[in-house]
Amino acid sequence: MCQLKVLFLFLTIAAAGVVCSGGVTSSFVRKSQPSVCMPLNTFPPPSGDNAPEQYDTLYNYELGTGDAARQFCFTTAPKAGPDVPYTFGDLGQTYDSNQTFEHYFSNPEGQAMLFVGDLCYADAHLYHDNNRWDAWGRFVEKSTAYQPWIWTAGNHEIDFAPEIGEIVPFKPFMHRYHVPYKASKSTSPLWYSIKRASAYIIVLSSYSAYGKYTPQYNWLEQELPKVNRAETPWLIVLLHSPWYNSNGYHYMEGESMRVMFESWFVEHKVDIVFAGHVHSYERTKRFSNVKYNITNGLSTPVKDPSAPVYVTIGDGGNLEGLANNFSDPQPSYSAFREASYGHGMLRIKNRTHAHFTWHRNHDNEPVVADSVWLSNRHWYPEEEQN
Amino acid sequence: MCQLKVLFLFLTIAAAGVVCSGGVTSSFVRKSQPSVCMPLNTFPPPSGDNAPEQYDTLYNYELGTGDAARQFCFTTAPKAGPDVPYTFGDLGQTYDSNQTFEHYFSNPEGQAMLFVGDLCYADAHLYHDNNRWDAWGRFVEKSTAYQPWIWTAGNHEIDFAPEIGEIVPFKPFMHRYHVPYKASKSTSPLWYSIKRASAYIIVLSSYSAYGKYTPQYNWLEQELPKVNRAETPWLIVLLHSPWYNSNGYHYMEGESMRVMFESWFVEHKVDIVFAGHVHSYERTKRFSNVKYNITNGLSTPVKDPSAPVYVTIGDGGNLEGLANNFSDPQPSYSAFREASYGHGMLRIKNRTHAHFTWHRNHDNEPVVADSVWLSNRHWYPEEEQN
Repeated sequence: MCQLKVLFLFLTIAAAGVVCSGGVTSSFVRKSQPSVCMPLNTFPPPSGDNAPEQYDTLYNYELGTGDAARQFCFTTAPKAGPDVPYTFGDLGQTYDSNQTFEHYFSNPEGQAMLFVGDLCYADAHLYHDNNRWDAWGRFVEKSTAYQPWIWTAGNHEIDFAPEIGEIVPFKPFMHRYHVPYKASKSTSPLWYSIKRASAYIIVLSSYSAYGKYTPQYNWLEQELPKVNRAETPWLIVLLHSPWYNSNGYHYMEGESMRVMFESWFVEHKVDIVFAGHVHSYERTKRFSNVKYNITNGLSTPVKDPSAPVYVTIGDGGNLEGLANNFSDPQPSYSAFREASYGHGMLRIKNRTHAHFTWHRNHDNEPVVADSVWLSNRHWYPEEEQN
Repeated sequence: MCQLKVLFLFLTIAAAGVVCSGGVTSSFVRKSQPSVCMPLNTFPPPSGDNAPEQYDTLYNYELGTGDAARQFCFTTAPKAGPDVPYTFGDLGQTYDSNQTFEHYFSNPEGQAMLFVGDLCYADAHLYHDNNRWDAWGRFVEKSTAYQPWIWTAGNHEIDFAPEIGEIVPFKPFMHRYHVPYKASKSTSPLWYSIKRASAYIIVLSSYSAYGKYTPQYNWLEQELPKVNRAETPWLIVLLHSPWYNSNGYHYMEGESMRVMFESWFVEHKVDIVFAGHVHSYERTKRFSNVKYNITNGLSTPVKDPSAPVYVTIGDGGNLEGLANNFSDPQPSYSAFREASYGHGMLRIKNRTHAHFTWHRNHDNEPVVADSVWLSNRHWYPEEEQN
C-alpha cells in the first residue's frame, strides 16, 4: 500500500511540474509505453483517500480542469518479491541531449528510471534562469508522466547563488521534484529509499553533510540493516559524484563520501552503485578500499566479492561535452570505460541474476556496447565474467 | 571598524543569552580581568549606529532595564597588525567541568577564547532539555560577557532529534550563539573568519556539507587566498572533529573532511589547527598526507614544513569521561599526547614566534604540562624543536 502511494506521488508531481509552469505538449504521442491510457470516465471514481490501491494495475489520472485538462496514466509496480523481474533505465545528465532521452524512450522495456542527477543545468544561465527548469520538465514529460523517475540530486541542482541572494541549496530542484522520503523515515528529500519489485533502491546526496552524526549519516546507518534481501534481493545505491572513476574529469571528488560509507556498502553487500557527474561511461569490477587506517599504508583498491559494481553513467549528455581524459594505464578496478553519450538498462531477472547493458547514442538502441551478467551478492555471490 | 562591530556582537549576544533566559548570577566577582568596568553614566552616550569605534578601548554596556539592568564591559581588540601580541585561550568541552573553566578564568592573560565545540551537552538529556543551554550560558557568562569566545559547532550542537520533530540541525546553538559570519561573506554561522591582532582565524563546520560545490567548500576556497600574512601573519583554523588523532576514541572520524581540505591547508601554510571532540590532549609535528591518488599507495603521513601543527584539545571536561585509548606505538606524526583534563594558551609574540602551552587541571595553573615555540609558516618557516 505504501509503495503504491509513493508511486502515485512520483507521477503526479512529475506531471504537475509541467502543468504548473503552463507548458503544453502540442503533439502528445505515446509511442512505446506498455499500457494504453483510457478515458477517465470509464473508471469508477475513487472512494476517498482510503480507496484500495492495487499492484500492477493501470491508473488513469487527469491534471487541470476544463479546457486545460490533460489525461495521463501509469501502471503501478508489481508487488515486491524476490523473483519479480523488473527493468530500470539508468540515465545521467540529459540537458542538450534529446538524443539520449529519445533513445531510452524508444525502448519499451523500461519500467522505471534511475536518474543520477544534473537535470536541467539552469545554473549555467543568468540568474540560474528557472525557465530552464520548467522547459526541462516539459521535455521529459512524455516519460515522467507515465513511469517513475527516481531522482538523485547532482551538483547542478544545488543552485547556490549568494550573489543574487539565493543561499538555500537545492531550492528549485526540491520545489519541483518531490520524492517520497518520509516513507523511509528520512528527514530530507535528498536521501531516501524506495522498493520496486525485487529491488531496494537507496538514494544518497553527494552535496549534503555526510559526516558522522549528521542526518544523512544517521539515516543510512539505520536504513541499511532494514533491507530484507528475502523480499528485495537487489540492493542498489544511487549517488551523483562517483567513488570509482578513472577519468581525470572530477577525479577523486567522491573520495570524501567514499571514506565515510564504503565499508557499510561492503558489509551490507550492495549489488550496484550508479553515479553520474563524469561525462563518460565506466563500469568497475568488484573492488573495495576499506583497510586503510592512516598508518598501515593499505590504501589501494583490492578485489572484494562483497563489494558493489560501480557504474558511472554521467554520459546522458550535457553542456560541458564529453570527458575523454582517462588515466593511463587503466586501473585494475576498472572493467570497461568509454567517453560516448549513452544510457544503461538494468534487467533484473530473478533473485540471482540481472543483466546490465550500456547503449551508445550513435548506435541503434538494440546495439549493446557493454554488457555484464550480475550475480546477486546475497543469493549468488559468484564472481562475474566481465 | 568592521572588526570592532564584530567583537561587540559577540559580546552582546553571549551575555544576552543569559538575560533572555532570565538567569541571574548571584555573586558576580571579576577576579582577574585586565580592565575595570566603569558606570555607564560616566561615558558620553553613543551618537547612533555610526558612532566611531576605537581599537583597544574599554567599552561598557548594559543589558536589561530598571531593576533587571546589568552592566558589563569589554576591551576592543588592538588594531590588526603583523607584530601585535595577543593571547588566546583554547578550550574544548566544558560540560561538567567547572574546574577547567575556573582554571582558564584564573589566568588574566587570555584576551579571547578559541572554543572548539560541544558546549552544554543538552542532547544527552530528555528532549534535548534546552534549560541546559541556558544554564551553560550562565555558567560561562563571567568570561563571555567580557571577552570574545570564538565559537565552533561540535556534534553536541547538532541537536538533530527526529523522534521529537526536530529535524533542523544546530537550532538551539544557532539561536543562542550568534557569530559575525556575514562580515567574512559566509552564508552560514557555522563557518566564518575573524581577525584578532596578528591572527586570522577560520572556523569550519565538521557537521555541515563540505563536498566540492557546497557552500562551505566554495567559501573556504575563496577565503584562504584572502588572508594577508603581512597584516595577520598567523593563520589559525578551528574545527571540531580532529584530522590527526591517535586515540581510538573517534578515530578517523575527521578523515572525510581531511580528504577535502588538507591540501589547501598545506598550500596556504596554515600555522595551527585546533580541534576538539576527543577527550584528551594531543599535539602533532608538522605532517601532511596529500600525495594519495588512489593507485599510488602514497597514503602515509609524512613530514612537511608547510603543514599545520594539529592540536586536539577536547579535554575541557565532558559527560563521557577521558579517552585513554591511544594507539601503540605512538605514530610518527604525534609529538605529545595525554588523557588529562586541561586547557591551552596560545601567546602570539610577533610575526615570527608564538608560544603554546597546555595546562592540566590537576596542576596549578602556572604549571606547564606541554609547551612548544611555534614558528610562523609564512615569515619564519623553520622546524620547531619539540
